[in-house]
Amino acid sequence: MKFTEQLAAAWQDNNSLLCVGLDPDPAKFPVHLQDKPDGIFRFCAEIADATADLACAFKPQIAYFAARRAEDQLEALIAHIHDKHPGVPVILDAKRGDIGSTAEQYAIEAFERYKADAVTVNPYMGRDSVEPWLAYKDKGVILLCRTSNPGGSDLQFLRVGAGDTAVFEHVARLVATEWNTMGATPGQCALVVGATFPGEIARVREIVGDMPLLVPGIGAQGGDIEATVTAGKTAAGTGLMINSSRAILYAGKGEDYAAVARQVALQTRDAINRWR
Amino acid sequence: MKFTEQLAAAWQDNNSLLCVGLDPDPAKFPVHLQDKPDGIFRFCAEIADATADLACAFKPQIAYFAARRAEDQLEALIAHIHDKHPGVPVILDAKRGDIGSTAEQYAIEAFERYKADAVTVNPYMGRDSVEPWLAYKDKGVILLCRTSNPGGSDLQFLRVGAGDTAVFEHVARLVATEWNTMGATPGQCALVVGATFPGEIARVREIVGDMPLLVPGIGAQGGDIEATVTAGKTAAGTGLMINSSRAILYAGKGEDYAAVARQVALQTRDAINRWR
Repeated sequence: MKFTEQLAAAWQDNNSLLCVGLDPDPAKFPVHLQDKPDGIFRFCAEIADATADLACAFKPQIAYFAARRAEDQLEALIAHIHDKHPGVPVILDAKRGDIGSTAEQYAIEAFERYKADAVTVNPYMGRDSVEPWLAYKDKGVILLCRTSNPGGSDLQFLRVGAGDTAVFEHVARLVATEWNTMGATPGQCALVVGATFPGEIARVREIVGDMPLLVPGIGAQGGDIEATVTAGKTAAGTGLMINSSRAILYAGKGEDYAAVARQVALQTRDAINRWR
Repeated sequence: MKFTEQLAAAWQDNNSLLCVGLDPDPAKFPVHLQDKPDGIFRFCAEIADATADLACAFKPQIAYFAARRAEDQLEALIAHIHDKHPGVPVILDAKRGDIGSTAEQYAIEAFERYKADAVTVNPYMGRDSVEPWLAYKDKGVILLCRTSNPGGSDLQFLRVGAGDTAVFEHVARLVATEWNTMGATPGQCALVVGATFPGEIARVREIVGDMPLLVPGIGAQGGDIEATVTAGKTAAGTGLMINSSRAILYAGKGEDYAAVARQVALQTRDAINRWR
């Protein structure tokens, strides 16, 4: 099934716009999982099992696995989610970006090795760095547009052309009018727009119509839920994957951490739904 | 030793501005290395052994390893180069880019796990996505500026400000005036500028003084050596890491592929030196 259709089904079935980010940092794990050889897998799989009916997507961040030689645990985690929670798509947060022949290799990594349903991609190298991802029928390609970090402004907020457009708006328009229709299946694209800038979420929504937006930055990064949802929702009250990672993963410190994570995920989902 | 000092020593000791790119695609290997469990390592290590006295750097491209679950062979390869050819620095071509807390994880991957001397980084997310890399004393951080692929123009060539500056020039200035001095050691930065645009190499050289430039795009991608060297060299006749990957790696198809690769590397080094 097409990623955007999987996502639409999860929005409805789980009544949720919450994306649960899986950024496993063993130093923050409960003691009983620290130093276990498969601790990263177990930590993330238990979080996924505890929150799957509350989430519209899971988003493992590959850097946390790669820093610890845990690629095998990432493979096992995505297989586990597909097996136990087939209704919730998996976004591999990798932010890759390279020339076409190399992007083909990265696409093999994300879609054939890890079997992710969608991937985050950096747009800086342009059209032919994005095409190899889009050649995979039905897979989602989520382009960085306006990121949630302070340095995001360094490039993304530069004024281009006659000065009335910022780089991130140019990216949004390029993706909506060109890249979104150049793949194996029309409509494979989505955009990353940080919750720390609600005015810019509204601007991107205006440019891209109903295209899904992945919104990091609530919770640990300080973004405001009401402002994010109000600015970013579509007419149908969907269109968003609002990501929370650390605030959910590390809410509990003890053996009951997954149950505590579930409580926070439930509160976050409901806080989001209040403004749909 | 500082990456830029390692590089300067290799420029001099090997009388070379040639960077040998290691993009191992098993389908193009000589038959005797295809389907070997350690074939990727053996192929690259033999290329490195055959060209180490002709190169100023080696640049393994991580996607080719990750697509084939060969992270262990990449670790072994970099360890082999450090052990056998300590005078030639290793650039991990990964083009990562993410928020600070995630960039810290990617920096652990590149510098602690793989023990690379330098890494390529995407600038789209700005200053705080670059800082964690620069926190590693002496390591090199090579920012994408003007890439060699056709789509590079989509964002990098947008005019910003009053319209007299392109995005890639803005990146060059930002790196030269700010990011290059904000790390653990001043002068850790370099830039990627594609050989397919010699006029733009000259423009970047004008902006960044003697900062090293990594120049992909000669050989398979069609860039011109004379134009590249003339546009990019410093007053000292150095300042460049001119990358060639496929044209060297796959010059020979038989068991003598490493000797054939050496011949092409020698010719390429000498062709570059003609214009210094």
